[in-house]
Amino acid sequence: MSPEDEDIELDVILSVLENPVRREILKRLSRETNYPLQLSKELNVSQQAIMKHLKVLEENDFVESTEEKSDKGGPPRKVYSPKRRYCIRIDIGPNTYQEEFYTYKKYDIVKKEFQESDVSYEKQIEIKGKVTGEMKDEVVAALPAFTDPDLEKIRIKLEEIVNETNYNVKINELKLLVQEIENNINTIETKRKRLLALKERTNQEINTLISHISMNQIEKDLLTLYIKTNTLDPNFLSEQLNVRKTIIEKTLDKLVNFIENKKD
Amino acid sequence: MSPEDEDIELDVILSVLENPVRREILKRLSRETNYPLQLSKELNVSQQAIMKHLKVLEENDFVESTEEKSDKGGPPRKVYSPKRRYCIRIDIGPNTYQEEFYTYKKYDIVKKEFQESDVSYEKQIEIKGKVTGEMKDEVVAALPAFTDPDLEKIRIKLEEIVNETNYNVKINELKLLVQEIENNINTIETKRKRLLALKERTNQEINTLISHISMNQIEKDLLTLYIKTNTLDPNFLSEQLNVRKTIIEKTLDKLVNFIENKKD
Repeated sequence: MSPEDEDIELDVILSVLENPVRREILKRLSRETNYPLQLSKELNVSQQAIMKHLKVLEENDFVESTEEKSDKGGPPRKVYSPKRRYCIRIDIGPNTYQEEFYTYKKYDIVKKEFQESDVSYEKQIEIKGKVTGEMKDEVVAALPAFTDPDLEKIRIKLEEIVNETNYNVKINELKLLVQEIENNINTIETKRKRLLALKERTNQEINTLISHISMNQIEKDLLTLYIKTNTLDPNFLSEQLNVRKTIIEKTLDKLVNFIENKKD
Repeated sequence: MSPEDEDIELDVILSVLENPVRREILKRLSRETNYPLQLSKELNVSQQAIMKHLKVLEENDFVESTEEKSDKGGPPRKVYSPKRRYCIRIDIGPNTYQEEFYTYKKYDIVKKEFQESDVSYEKQIEIKGKVTGEMKDEVVAALPAFTDPDLEKIRIKLEEIVNETNYNVKINELKLLVQEIENNINTIETKRKRLLALKERTNQEINTLISHISMNQIEKDLLTLYIKTNTLDPNFLSEQLNVRKTIIEKTLDKLVNFIENKKD
């Protein structure tokens, strides 16, 4: 998927999620599959409107539907369930704009990580201990990170819970595990927020410095790209900025000369 | 801000960001303030369309405009700059739906953190060492986390860079710092992605367990809420689920009795 494709996808995803009823439908379906009639009752929205929203969600791969025989001998009815995984993240600040978006189907990321890894699939399973068949789908995806003690602790606990047959014990353990996962995610969120504050301040310093050094747009764009990618390759810079290579080279010479001799 | 207000805000934010030209405008403005005419040229979009988008962005507090005297004696022209910070995060999976959204103006979060902290503002500055006046705005906001060595290392480096007067050194240091911040954020993203995979699998276990235990919607909702919040307070559960307290109590009795005696 090229960066351009991703841009187009993000537009679509955001326009789908912008609608609060569609977000509410996704939340409900993440707890259990559902029929339009049920959703209509639970959300207090007309069945016609629900059908419209489900159509949008299905066309954009958020949900899928399967036909189910009616138990009262009526026509078969459609039951909806969530389909893909999306993580969307947008950070906006006076000196920061960053958007991230990834989507993957069940095994895709697993395969990709195994392909990129030096260690074979079997070897990874061996290293990390027995993984129950039922857990493979989602949990194996996280294997390469399990040198991290927080993650490994959660994985082991999850394996125990999957094998637990006493409902009472199982519910109690699930409660504790949910809390532990949430705590871990919150800790990470806090650290990320603080890194963003530091990034925002660093970007401010970069923008101020660049406005001191350079006068025109090409120079500014060139310096920004240089600082953020640390490359002076004229071919790369020319392609990224859509500016002729000869101009890039001339501008680079000028900037390098200026920076070498300039004191604040 | 009540949870309901936040819901409304997120709809608006997403509908603003859904438009790729508006996202591109925010990206440009995060690098430098800009005039509509400049933006129109850079983005190759008519000035009329740019004005429309800027109006939407301004009405929703993404940007603000200030009037600037024209240097050619013409009428004053408006210059636009980004205003608020937003972090938007939405995670969607077959068994997961979670949205997060926070927004804050410059000192708000700083104040809040200081208010919630046991340690006084002055004491925190003392503990963390001298903070330059210029840096206070953004960096002080991150102070309470600086027991974390990764963050503290970045803060110290940033202080040095702010005080650096040699442009050559400054650019080199900024390049390294940008890279270090990005690496830190990437590490965190990877861990978070894996926690989400574990959370998704845990939620699947919860949903399966609940569908084994309970038949009707109230029971299901009650069990889900109980596992995720770990509370049995009938008042809280009644309010959250919008179900009468007597029904909650009856259902709780039934569920507790069932769970205590049931084996898988």
